[in-house]
Amino acid sequence: MRKFDTKKDEYSRILQRQANETADVSQVVTNILADVEKNGDQALFQLTKKIDGIELTALKVSEAEMVEALEKVPEKLLTVLKLAKEKITSFHQKQVRQGFVATDEPGVVMGQRILPLEKVGVYVPGGTASYPSTVLMDTIPAKIAGVAKIVMVTPPNQAGKVEPAILAAAKIAGVDEVYKVGGAQAVAALAYGTETIPQVDKIVGPGNIYVATAKKMVYGKVDIDMIAGPSDVLIVADESGKANWLAADMIAQAEHDTLAQAILVTTDADLAEAVEAEVSKQLAALPRQKIAEASLNQNGKIILVKDLKEAVEIANLVAPEHLELAVKEPFALLSQVKNAGSVFLGHHTPEVLGDYLAGPNHTLPTEGTARFYSPLSVDDFVKKSSYLYYDEAALKEVGAAVAYFAETEDLVGHARSMQLRLEAD
Amino acid sequence: MRKFDTKKDEYSRILQRQANETADVSQVVTNILADVEKNGDQALFQLTKKIDGIELTALKVSEAEMVEALEKVPEKLLTVLKLAKEKITSFHQKQVRQGFVATDEPGVVMGQRILPLEKVGVYVPGGTASYPSTVLMDTIPAKIAGVAKIVMVTPPNQAGKVEPAILAAAKIAGVDEVYKVGGAQAVAALAYGTETIPQVDKIVGPGNIYVATAKKMVYGKVDIDMIAGPSDVLIVADESGKANWLAADMIAQAEHDTLAQAILVTTDADLAEAVEAEVSKQLAALPRQKIAEASLNQNGKIILVKDLKEAVEIANLVAPEHLELAVKEPFALLSQVKNAGSVFLGHHTPEVLGDYLAGPNHTLPTEGTARFYSPLSVDDFVKKSSYLYYDEAALKEVGAAVAYFAETEDLVGHARSMQLRLEAD
Repeated sequence: MRKFDTKKDEYSRILQRQANETADVSQVVTNILADVEKNGDQALFQLTKKIDGIELTALKVSEAEMVEALEKVPEKLLTVLKLAKEKITSFHQKQVRQGFVATDEPGVVMGQRILPLEKVGVYVPGGTASYPSTVLMDTIPAKIAGVAKIVMVTPPNQAGKVEPAILAAAKIAGVDEVYKVGGAQAVAALAYGTETIPQVDKIVGPGNIYVATAKKMVYGKVDIDMIAGPSDVLIVADESGKANWLAADMIAQAEHDTLAQAILVTTDADLAEAVEAEVSKQLAALPRQKIAEASLNQNGKIILVKDLKEAVEIANLVAPEHLELAVKEPFALLSQVKNAGSVFLGHHTPEVLGDYLAGPNHTLPTEGTARFYSPLSVDDFVKKSSYLYYDEAALKEVGAAVAYFAETEDLVGHARSMQLRLEAD
Repeated sequence: MRKFDTKKDEYSRILQRQANETADVSQVVTNILADVEKNGDQALFQLTKKIDGIELTALKVSEAEMVEALEKVPEKLLTVLKLAKEKITSFHQKQVRQGFVATDEPGVVMGQRILPLEKVGVYVPGGTASYPSTVLMDTIPAKIAGVAKIVMVTPPNQAGKVEPAILAAAKIAGVDEVYKVGGAQAVAALAYGTETIPQVDKIVGPGNIYVATAKKMVYGKVDIDMIAGPSDVLIVADESGKANWLAADMIAQAEHDTLAQAILVTTDADLAEAVEAEVSKQLAALPRQKIAEASLNQNGKIILVKDLKEAVEIANLVAPEHLELAVKEPFALLSQVKNAGSVFLGHHTPEVLGDYLAGPNHTLPTEGTARFYSPLSVDDFVKKSSYLYYDEAALKEVGAAVAYFAETEDLVGHARSMQLRLEAD
């Protein structure tokens, strides 16, 4: 782990991460998108064979496969999935918005309606990053928003199946259809539609660099949630921090991915030393030791600051995905936090609690994008539509001003649309 | 104008528009972005000379230029701009959201904060598409959201200046800084920052294909409002529609751009004929006749339907930017409208009213993207941040479930972050 002192000119280096896009990926993804747009299902079968090494006979997960999966999943996991669903639902229901109507002026009605998206695609990664928790987090807000059809895509495993836990989570969350296709080709299928897979209005969910690049390329054709990068945590700790807990929190972040980033910012030099020692100790017994070690060596940082004000300044600069405030008075710091996807307050709120079932969403802005992106929410699955009504008298009040404004913009046709109405009896 | 009957298989052709992106544009924009990222202001001066033919001595509009511009603008325009500001502000203030806090469970506090973006860039096109109304529409919601710094970029005119009406609108709307740079290079400056122009969190505003492509390319590095295409209107009319008003409304749309689209969907065959005749008549006297004529010939459509239900079905399929309901009972149709940027109800609410000063935003989703995009609003200038607090007892309630869930996802480091806290006294 690299250690930094508090010199301001070091701050920019805190943010240094590996670049994660190459021209090579763009070309591969461009070709895949064109192939799927042109050849539909046939392209999906061929690409799944070529890229995943799986020869599928059907893209859609059958009812029989769904039943089989649910039977394979331990009862205990079903119980935990249902508990998580309940808590996530409870939190996200508070995000539901109502439209508004304004009737302040005589003869005028205007407002804004909130309408659910009709069809949404949820991308679920395969392999070691295949998380049932993500299925819940990405689907439940869409259900609450009132999305009519939720379609999940995920690459098949080596047996040509989807992991039972993923299917169980999909069932519990309320996914309508599951398709065994992943990568850029799955994004293409959702963006363009194929014979089997419906075109959707929005694609959400994390994925590797091919998935992220494909999502960016189809953005505009459909909406997307965000461009997700590797995960990160920034922990602000004062002398009340417990070294072994904080070391465990940094390792939990680092075990995701070698590109993941864990940063500790502390006012306490002894704590900094102790966390570093604890990290080394705890890494030894970790199944994902190599991944976590690489992440911490490349991107992990411990920064000593003179006070908590400076710590929060650094947090706002980094704009972390997850921000732990492991301090005596965490609520006192909250109002100073300007850029963070999700904030975890106090010593008994480790980030992993939010990963699973506390309630707030775990799909969060990464790589400093908490400056402008938000946690996934019910808002992501609705659109707004404004409306306006003027009666004749109200129109006559403002008509001349509108026509004049249009003329100053050299839009005579606009002015005329208004003038014809003003001239009428 | 092409006429269609009501056969379903014709519907897909209603949506046909010219493709508006080419590999050529992508390459040009890629080079411009790289140039500005590397060379900053120097690249901006050079590109402005090369592309706009203007040799600037300074990028920033000076205080003296601002004063001079305000003196040049007619008093009447200032009055109309202020009226528009008042009405736009009044509508958008109703969009302001509060965060929430949930304290339903003992020892648990969680919620969502709404925070303004810090810096926003507003792109204002030059030439004939340079509209003071757009300056108001794109800036006022940002001010209401609480954005600390609003930076405007716009290409200089042939005299190396910005049009006085644009500067007046910027002043009235509350823009903090104006820079004389346009095109992809302006987008690059806002995305990366230069010596003079600050990096922003989000770029909003319409532009040509180079601007739109640049916005898409920097999306993820910063946020953007949407990928804007040519403007469109769909008018639903029953026998109560007035042919000359509706013809004027179609022409108002068509005069924007040869790629603009105006569609009339009506239940009344006589009205369809009459509107077509009126369009020809009114086009004759229009300054922008050539543009409007080309737009109507290429993209204009009149569609005859058997009833209003079918008319709204077509509207939902097209997902128009602007939807006029020129019918006897417009409010009765509103609830059936699922996809439309902004809806104009009744005969005395022409779309141009919304373009200028009624209140709702005129920056709207185009090219069918009202399926998933929304009108520009205060929401575009805030981000959300969630927060979570558990006390020790509350953590002990759910800790085992969280640890178990983490283990099923093979994330032992996650489980340990929880277990260490459960084991502690």
